[in-house]
Amino acid sequence: MDYAATTPVDPRVVEAMLPYFTEKFGNSASLHSVGQEAEAVLESCRRKVAKLLGARPSEIFFTSGGTESDNMALKGIALANKNRGKHIITSQIEHHAVLHPAEWLEKQGFRVTYLPVDKYGMVDPASVERTISEDTILVSIMHANNEIGTIEPIEEIGKICRKGGVYFHTDAVQSVGKIPVSLKHIDILSSSGHKIYGPKGVGIIFIKEGTKIEPIIHGGGHEHGMHSGTENIAGIVGYTKALELCIKEMKPETKKLLKFRKRLIEEIDKIPDCWLNGHPEKRLPGNVHFCFRFIEGESLILLLDQKGIEASTGSACSSKSLKPSHVLTAIGLKPEEAHGSLRLTMGRFTTQEDVERVIKVLPGIVERLRKISPLGK
Amino acid sequence: MDYAATTPVDPRVVEAMLPYFTEKFGNSASLHSVGQEAEAVLESCRRKVAKLLGARPSEIFFTSGGTESDNMALKGIALANKNRGKHIITSQIEHHAVLHPAEWLEKQGFRVTYLPVDKYGMVDPASVERTISEDTILVSIMHANNEIGTIEPIEEIGKICRKGGVYFHTDAVQSVGKIPVSLKHIDILSSSGHKIYGPKGVGIIFIKEGTKIEPIIHGGGHEHGMHSGTENIAGIVGYTKALELCIKEMKPETKKLLKFRKRLIEEIDKIPDCWLNGHPEKRLPGNVHFCFRFIEGESLILLLDQKGIEASTGSACSSKSLKPSHVLTAIGLKPEEAHGSLRLTMGRFTTQEDVERVIKVLPGIVERLRKISPLGK
Repeated sequence: MDYAATTPVDPRVVEAMLPYFTEKFGNSASLHSVGQEAEAVLESCRRKVAKLLGARPSEIFFTSGGTESDNMALKGIALANKNRGKHIITSQIEHHAVLHPAEWLEKQGFRVTYLPVDKYGMVDPASVERTISEDTILVSIMHANNEIGTIEPIEEIGKICRKGGVYFHTDAVQSVGKIPVSLKHIDILSSSGHKIYGPKGVGIIFIKEGTKIEPIIHGGGHEHGMHSGTENIAGIVGYTKALELCIKEMKPETKKLLKFRKRLIEEIDKIPDCWLNGHPEKRLPGNVHFCFRFIEGESLILLLDQKGIEASTGSACSSKSLKPSHVLTAIGLKPEEAHGSLRLTMGRFTTQEDVERVIKVLPGIVERLRKISPLGK
Repeated sequence: MDYAATTPVDPRVVEAMLPYFTEKFGNSASLHSVGQEAEAVLESCRRKVAKLLGARPSEIFFTSGGTESDNMALKGIALANKNRGKHIITSQIEHHAVLHPAEWLEKQGFRVTYLPVDKYGMVDPASVERTISEDTILVSIMHANNEIGTIEPIEEIGKICRKGGVYFHTDAVQSVGKIPVSLKHIDILSSSGHKIYGPKGVGIIFIKEGTKIEPIIHGGGHEHGMHSGTENIAGIVGYTKALELCIKEMKPETKKLLKFRKRLIEEIDKIPDCWLNGHPEKRLPGNVHFCFRFIEGESLILLLDQKGIEASTGSACSSKSLKPSHVLTAIGLKPEEAHGSLRLTMGRFTTQEDVERVIKVLPGIVERLRKISPLGK
């Protein structure tokens, strides 16, 4: 129940990767046949990923993961376009991989607007339009939120950006491979392997042809200079295979997840003093996110874990922080409400049994925690 | 014969990694037991690597590879210490993963001195001492050169830096796991997995406690904020196991490689109009580097490849460039001499047979190429 944090690598993906560790292990920069074979595999992966996403091969660059891709999008655009303008627009509910580079850029003299969201976590495209000014160079709005699952209106936002002559980046780490993604109005997109049943430590960045961007890692000039360092061919093969499987199996998987989501939401909703966060319909098929009053999310996670259910409070990446999730405060929750949050995220290997197990044990755990809660009821 | 470009992953390393793809795939930031197990593995790897290198666990940070580590060392130190000074010292024979960040920093207003080397590719410690000035913040000199194999006097240079109150970084991508490395006089060190029979896409950076450095990737604050992004546990386990094996087996492996190196050098030296590059003794055990007059290195590589021998001219990372290797011009070779270079690098799976095969076919190939050479003899 924690597929949004990370996913197991699909055995078919591991199988595809294996030969690239021990046999086909060449450095794609070498001139000899072992190196050239690596180069050929790399370019074949690039073509496959491009085709799956509807891009040109020259627009796909492999990176070390979603965080690097996000860093590259923000810093790379900012540094390459600083003579044109120093204003960046993003939202209050972005992943830290976007927010922290934005804060870093503020220290370098850039101005960043963090747009608010509505109670569903939705960014209003009109607010993007209003906020774009003469010196805006980049808008970065995520496709789907990693905590509450809300799917943002990135097509409309992308159109507004294009009209305004402003680059549009979307962090699609939670959406690629899970819901359809159209690159039509997007200039830069980030995706990560380990959220789509691929390996950790690999991701991509899509950069539309003609985009003025600087690399953040300099060196041997790999990936057309955008990501130097010997290419992680096994990881790249894994990412490619993972994406291929996700897109091929998206339809039946989505159907299954929507059914599970509906059942979970309906049943959890029966527990007193709780509510669903995120948009009721415009949300990731595998995402269920509730707040329970008078409860500490951390304790909830630990008791669920004892019953063999892995879940999350806040997002995995910030789950060790004592601060309430910035996403939940952005949708208007008070800190004490935000602390009682539970994220259940389902995926490829989730079964009806898993769902029923949650439904069976959750009410009792909530009741037990409320009894001992100093937050009082 | 191209182990310096990359190495196959040792089957024992693959075996160690495998469970972390499909079973133990947790996100170390998650609170539940699957996440905590990942966290425990991560910290156990950190402790092992620290012990193997003679560091504290808190001084080891996992990265996406040597290039990222080098970028971090240069940019991270420069940006964090710019108020103290804006001068950096490096050498003309560094890897592009050091030189290109240095050039980038020059564009950001830093001053970089690229120290020359002698005919063996040796940096003179006295020249480092002379060049350190009031506003010097960092010296970056590689441990062992990736092309000609020369081992630099980093202990002396490190002592000079410490005396001068200047940070010392060494790119040890070619030395860690191959020759003993002492961290005693080093503040920052880079190492890469795929040069030591580990996977591509993972490396480490050692940062001595108390070093003032900034991250270059911002996000969820993983690796104590030094490398954000969900940790590549499988890769980290692979790096750790690879390093463990290298250090454990260094003694017999070195003995074997020294024997092979001696035999190759003696036999190749019999070919007319050629000479050994790099230091005759202070060189990596597995490195043999010759220049042949009147020959194009590229053709040499292709003909050797036809005979089943993978080798390199220049370094793998720059082998597709038409420019002569910056390392070879730095040791005083003319462009036409540098173009006729051959790098043979041996490692764990190199056999006496492989060595004899090179000795058998190389003279004929050199002769054949000289016959057709427009460079004339």
